[in-house]
Amino acid sequence: MTKILFRLIDLQNYIVRFFTHYDVPEADAAIVADVLTSADLRGVDSHGIIRLDSYYGSQIRRGLIDVKSPITVVSETVASLALDGGTGLGHVVGYNAMLRCIEKARQSGVCMTTVRNSNHFGIAGYYAMMALPHDMIGISMTNAQPLVAPTYGKTALLGTNPIAVAVPAAENLPYVLDMATSIVPIGKITVYQKAGKSIPEGWGVDKEGQITTDPNEVLAGGALMALGGPDYLRGYKGYGLALLVDILTGVLSGAAFGGNVGGPSKGKVANVGHFFAAIRIDAFRPADEFKHDMDALMKQMKDAPKATGQDRIYIHGEKEFELAERNRAQGVPLMAEVVRQLQEAGQRLSIPFDLESVGQVEE
Amino acid sequence: MTKILFRLIDLQNYIVRFFTHYDVPEADAAIVADVLTSADLRGVDSHGIIRLDSYYGSQIRRGLIDVKSPITVVSETVASLALDGGTGLGHVVGYNAMLRCIEKARQSGVCMTTVRNSNHFGIAGYYAMMALPHDMIGISMTNAQPLVAPTYGKTALLGTNPIAVAVPAAENLPYVLDMATSIVPIGKITVYQKAGKSIPEGWGVDKEGQITTDPNEVLAGGALMALGGPDYLRGYKGYGLALLVDILTGVLSGAAFGGNVGGPSKGKVANVGHFFAAIRIDAFRPADEFKHDMDALMKQMKDAPKATGQDRIYIHGEKEFELAERNRAQGVPLMAEVVRQLQEAGQRLSIPFDLESVGQVEE
Repeated sequence: MTKILFRLIDLQNYIVRFFTHYDVPEADAAIVADVLTSADLRGVDSHGIIRLDSYYGSQIRRGLIDVKSPITVVSETVASLALDGGTGLGHVVGYNAMLRCIEKARQSGVCMTTVRNSNHFGIAGYYAMMALPHDMIGISMTNAQPLVAPTYGKTALLGTNPIAVAVPAAENLPYVLDMATSIVPIGKITVYQKAGKSIPEGWGVDKEGQITTDPNEVLAGGALMALGGPDYLRGYKGYGLALLVDILTGVLSGAAFGGNVGGPSKGKVANVGHFFAAIRIDAFRPADEFKHDMDALMKQMKDAPKATGQDRIYIHGEKEFELAERNRAQGVPLMAEVVRQLQEAGQRLSIPFDLESVGQVEE
Repeated sequence: MTKILFRLIDLQNYIVRFFTHYDVPEADAAIVADVLTSADLRGVDSHGIIRLDSYYGSQIRRGLIDVKSPITVVSETVASLALDGGTGLGHVVGYNAMLRCIEKARQSGVCMTTVRNSNHFGIAGYYAMMALPHDMIGISMTNAQPLVAPTYGKTALLGTNPIAVAVPAAENLPYVLDMATSIVPIGKITVYQKAGKSIPEGWGVDKEGQITTDPNEVLAGGALMALGGPDYLRGYKGYGLALLVDILTGVLSGAAFGGNVGGPSKGKVANVGHFFAAIRIDAFRPADEFKHDMDALMKQMKDAPKATGQDRIYIHGEKEFELAERNRAQGVPLMAEVVRQLQEAGQRLSIPFDLESVGQVEE
């Protein structure tokens, strides 16, 4: 697929222009710009600038995201914080919630923070990684509009509810797990549909709850399967993890949960819930010893004998860090179709997407 | 399979006799008895009385478990606690660590507790469930001897590293997720081997790291696969969860990690690590509102339309609670082979297993 390259800073500036056009305070717009472009940088196209207008812009215009609402404290202890996001932009709410979580963990060793009344916040990993420079472990989760069926069900009742955890190492890149609790995101099904290809058995079910290889069946009233997939591979564990994320993000925070979480197609306030945790490593043991042992654990994995046909064992986050490094240097790749959408929306909204491309790649 | 039924109290008393024979203080022996029988009660045979002598007794005799060593504090903040289990019995260490975690969460809202220098602690769910009567969410994890290969590897370097989370509801049974991060436990492979049956594709790999349906290949230098299984179903997520558990239980605590975690066959101190967390619900929102919403979330799942051929959607823990209730009434079922082993070991060790059976069942 042809992708067009843009300078990171140009994309960020455009996103800031886009949101300030909608009266988002400039500092907040800069946060959204950083979160969105970090997705494109890391190769998570589905959570990046592609959603700029189709999701965030359109929700603001409908009055379903309130860009000036303050974040308020619902409840607080020395090690916990329950916040209300005031239906603000998820990225701004998430960023501020994680900042406060880190600050409280600095004082108390650990902190957990819940958020209600928020919106889609982009990649969960962004907020988990905010803990890294503080020698903390960061955890970030969110619920989302229903796309996943419970085991033995046929209706989408749970979001792809991601779990993200970031852990610093010494010499090695940090461990950054950022995983949906479904096997694949819904966008992956759409890609196969557009290409006229069958999907592997286990990604999704049809409207009768039967595993199907036809992407159209998944999209027409079917649902995604939770991690694990079919029964014999223990898909109920993935269903359990999706429920767990909904409990911590939705029920514990007092946000929407299960089938009630809103999304762009629902025409109502999303009331998304988030959960964050920050763990100060030196509350448990000296941070340099910990990071040295993280290196040792990673080395065990990376140096282990490879399966026939494989030449590398990865640590979670490694591929994304390498991609981000490349993209910072060569430019951030956007699908030609996404660029066209940005140009079209920019023209319509009088926020022209007139950035100069710095090249293109096939990938 | 024929199973022989015993009264719960008789089994618990026998376990207490067994451990006090090895100078375990009676109060500690009672803790082990409760943890072990709770596994048999809940149908998790592999983690129950089956290990009484083959694992715990034999490790004590070899001097690899120190039954009188105190648990000491390594480091502490208002919301965190790092403990050293002094190579004690894992159940006793785990129980006391979770008690202290709950007590600190009562004060500070949340608490996280790590443990180093411990041993196999039985079912992880037991400790998570200790939080329930306090209107807290309980989390429990442990690392374990290596049995699982990293994605693209062929050598077992990670334990089946379970994640357990218990969450109270109002009218409904609590949500209790207690899942290995491998697809199946190693005992499941052995069962198929003994029965001369093939295993489903995705449970394990052979010594070259290739997916195999031959249980002998998995057991002869192969390894279990992490949740997700094959690449196209995103097995690297399960590998990521197994690593995460090892980071929180092994690296953060200062215990052994990865391929270095000991087990009964290794002839060295296991230095198993645990991680616990307790979350006071009313630190975030009123507990009765939370539990009411837990009921609502569970109802959404249970009342959802069923997939063709299915008549029930479960919440995690539900099957086990139902089984435990039945077994409390009818007697706890032990495999005939396990009874024979208990009798044989009891005779050899002069702790005769002379309990009166209350019947038998086929299951």
